[in-house]
Amino acid sequence: MNTPSSLEELIKALRCLPGVGPKSAQRMAYHLLQRDRQGALHLARSLDQAVSSVRHCSKCNNFSEEDVCPMCRSQRRETDMLCVVEMPADLLMMEQAQCYRGMYFVLMGRLSPLDGLGAKDLPLERLLKRARELSCEVILATNFTIEGEATAHYLATLLRAQGLKVSRIARGLPVGGELEHVDSGTLAQAVLERRTVTE
Amino acid sequence: MNTPSSLEELIKALRCLPGVGPKSAQRMAYHLLQRDRQGALHLARSLDQAVSSVRHCSKCNNFSEEDVCPMCRSQRRETDMLCVVEMPADLLMMEQAQCYRGMYFVLMGRLSPLDGLGAKDLPLERLLKRARELSCEVILATNFTIEGEATAHYLATLLRAQGLKVSRIARGLPVGGELEHVDSGTLAQAVLERRTVTE
Ligand SMILES: [Zn+2]
Ligand SMILES: [Zn+2]
Repeated sequence: MNTPSSLEELIKALRCLPGVGPKSAQRMAYHLLQRDRQGALHLARSLDQAVSSVRHCSKCNNFSEEDVCPMCRSQRRETDMLCVVEMPADLLMMEQAQCYRGMYFVLMGRLSPLDGLGAKDLPLERLLKRARELSCEVILATNFTIEGEATAHYLATLLRAQGLKVSRIARGLPVGGELEHVDSGTLAQAVLERRTVTE
Repeated sequence: MNTPSSLEELIKALRCLPGVGPKSAQRMAYHLLQRDRQGALHLARSLDQAVSSVRHCSKCNNFSEEDVCPMCRSQRRETDMLCVVEMPADLLMMEQAQCYRGMYFVLMGRLSPLDGLGAKDLPLERLLKRARELSCEVILATNFTIEGEATAHYLATLLRAQGLKVSRIARGLPVGGELEHVDSGTLAQAVLERRTVTE
C-alpha cells in the first residue's frame, strides 16, 4: 500500500532496459517523477516513434526507416566489397575511420553460446543472399573477442563454401602503439601476423 | 545518414535516465529495437500512466495517486510520532523493519550543496505544517551520510524553533555485528552513544 500501483508498474517496466536491476529501476522512476516529467513524456513518445518506424534494411540489415537504407541506396559506395560487422555502432566506427568505401552487412549480434545465441539467431540466409548478389570479397570485421572470433570463423566457412573470397581485418599494435604499453597477447599476434617488408 | 533519426531521437531521450551515458543509451536502444519491442511499448505506456497519475500526498509528501495516500488515511497508524525520511525507499525499509507505527514525512531529497540542492528545494513549509498539525515528536531518519547528517541538523534547528520535540535515530553496531568487522567510525560512535545499563 506504500507504493502507488502506477509507480510500481513503471519500476517494473524500466527493468526491460539492459543492465537495469531493481535498485536502479527504482532510482530512475523516482528521478523521472520527481525531477523530469518532461523527459519521461519525451522518452515515451520516442519509444513509440522508434518502435513504429525503425525496421531493418533489406540489404545490409542495419536499422533503417526505409526498406533499403540510404547507405545501400547510395551511388557513391563501391560494391566490390562487403564488410560484416556485429552491431550498428561498429559500422559507425568503420565510417569514422574513413578507410572503407564498400557495402556493409550488420549481423545485429554474434555467436554467443553463453547467452543462448546460436547460428539460427543470426540473419545468415540474408547475409549469403547479399554476398551472392554482390559476388564480391567479404571482409569479416567482427570483434577480436572470443565470441567475435568464433563468429568470424563460422562465417568464413559458410561464405567460402559459396566460392566467395573471405578476409579478416588484421590484429596488431594500434597506430602510435608502443611495445612497452601493449598487452602481450596483441604483441604476440602482431609478431605472428608480421608482413614481409618490400622496397 | 547511418542512423535513422527516430533511433537517434530514442538514444537522446534515454539520456534523461540517471546514470545513463551515451554508450549505454545506445546499447539500450539497440536492445529494445532488436529484442524487446513489446517491452519498449510497455515502458512507454507505463511512463505516460505514471506521469499522469502519480503526484505527492498532501500530508506525507510521498508519491501517491490520491490527494492523501492510504497510509496517511489509515486509522491503524499512531499519530504521536512523525518520522522524516529522505526517499520513498527509506520509508519502505522502515516499514519492513516493523519497528514503527507512526506517520511519515518524505523529503524527496536532502541538502546537497554539491548537486545544487539547498533548503529551498526541500518541502520545508509542508513539513512544518504537518509537524504542527500533529504536534508530536519528530524522528529524523535521514541517512548517516554527510548530506543526511547535515539535513538532520538543519531540520532539527528548524523544528525545535517551533517548540517541537525532535529526535534522531541511533547510530551503532548493526544487530549481530561483531566489533572485529565493523568500521572504526561506527564503533567510535557506538562507544560515544553508549547507554547506561539498568537492571
Ligand atoms: Zn542498408
Ligand atoms: Zn501520505
